[in-house]
Amino acid sequence: MATDVADLKARAERLRELHHGEGMLVLPNAWDAVSAAIVAEAGLPAVATASAAVSAMLGYPDGEGAPWQEMFAAAGRVARAVSVPVTVDAEAGYGMQPRELVDRLLDIGAVGCNLEDTDHRAGGLVEAGAHASRLAAVRAAADDAGVPIVINARVDTFLPASGIPESDRVAEAIRRGRLYRDAGADCIYPIGVRHKRDIATLVTELPGPINGNTGDDLELATLRELGVARVSYGPRFYRAAMADLRTRVQELLT
Amino acid sequence: MATDVADLKARAERLRELHHGEGMLVLPNAWDAVSAAIVAEAGLPAVATASAAVSAMLGYPDGEGAPWQEMFAAAGRVARAVSVPVTVDAEAGYGMQPRELVDRLLDIGAVGCNLEDTDHRAGGLVEAGAHASRLAAVRAAADDAGVPIVINARVDTFLPASGIPESDRVAEAIRRGRLYRDAGADCIYPIGVRHKRDIATLVTELPGPINGNTGDDLELATLRELGVARVSYGPRFYRAAMADLRTRVQELLT
Repeated sequence: MATDVADLKARAERLRELHHGEGMLVLPNAWDAVSAAIVAEAGLPAVATASAAVSAMLGYPDGEGAPWQEMFAAAGRVARAVSVPVTVDAEAGYGMQPRELVDRLLDIGAVGCNLEDTDHRAGGLVEAGAHASRLAAVRAAADDAGVPIVINARVDTFLPASGIPESDRVAEAIRRGRLYRDAGADCIYPIGVRHKRDIATLVTELPGPINGNTGDDLELATLRELGVARVSYGPRFYRAAMADLRTRVQELLT
Repeated sequence: MATDVADLKARAERLRELHHGEGMLVLPNAWDAVSAAIVAEAGLPAVATASAAVSAMLGYPDGEGAPWQEMFAAAGRVARAVSVPVTVDAEAGYGMQPRELVDRLLDIGAVGCNLEDTDHRAGGLVEAGAHASRLAAVRAAADDAGVPIVINARVDTFLPASGIPESDRVAEAIRRGRLYRDAGADCIYPIGVRHKRDIATLVTELPGPINGNTGDDLELATLRELGVARVSYGPRFYRAAMADLRTRVQELLT
């Protein structure tokens, strides 16, 4: 685990550089100590958690259904297992004040986080300006703490629960992404983009690095060609492991 | 989660019955909420944890390498995820007093435990008589608590770390198994038996249910024919899931 501010600062800077390098930053999300070690041992230069995997593993629904204490403890186990920088899927920040959020991330040795603009209490999206202000406050809190944590600002307009009509999703993602970037986010993550043309538009229209997802129409190589800086998988690998377990358990019974 | 003594007592009795029924009790060991739910949803009538999986997941070595608080918290997440009885791999009991061990199991809703005769501090095996006394004390503590928890007494003579010469392992397992059974253990678990003739001898020579493991020479059907009452898998399913993850992550990189 990272033990001092200088070490955490170096890790945060390394994580940020990985968004601006030659290669795309590929993050097959981890959920426990062993999955984190596997990702790092494969040579990947950073490890990200996935809240949907971690909360499921702990027995809670995703979307801030788990107590933050348990989520951060699990993320801390991921961070302790590897020496590469770790970024935490911090959902919407669990209602924490910015400095509290930053301190809790640093306490567990994490140097980056996802922060999403879904309002888990009211449903739908948080008003964009309010969310940008929150991101700016997290940025300022990180500056105060002396560790330039990498903020991956999730834009949830493509999620059905956002309530944004399909025809407006790209435009609203651009509007929000620009606000979040101006507020100090390092990377914009429009989760759930399914079409090549949409991700291409977002890469063109949004300044700075974009986090994409693979899908039917979106191979890793396609995302790379389009200029996507970072790719993450959410709970996909955890769910695949659990699907394998289901198959193996059923085989036992036959 | 089990909330009262009457409910815990009913679960413990149900778990005990499963060692004496027509069918063999098959326990593909779980390690988190989702793996536990998968085992229960497959129709298996009980769920067991595996300390080697849980400690690895938490980032610690097996053999009481993890703080008991974290091990019990993880086992509690397994217990909360299912309605069938849960039995916890409690290693050697973490140096707890018998009543403390029983209370902590019941606190998390567990109604059974593995207790092994390896001495994790000194190395090798605990003296057999001392271990039998400890098992008797756990039995008495469970009686006092009003919940007849199912004690699966692990006999570690077949583990290389036991220091028992190969030629003496069966005889020493019989000697220990009889002592542990007389002390009130419900099931004897000679872990790591590889040969059919050895497990057959143990089933014949030891009174009461025996916990076996599958292996090259030991299919589930073979164990059933030999009269093994309970079969568990330790960390095998967890390790298989992690091996799959390793393959998938490497595939990403090519």
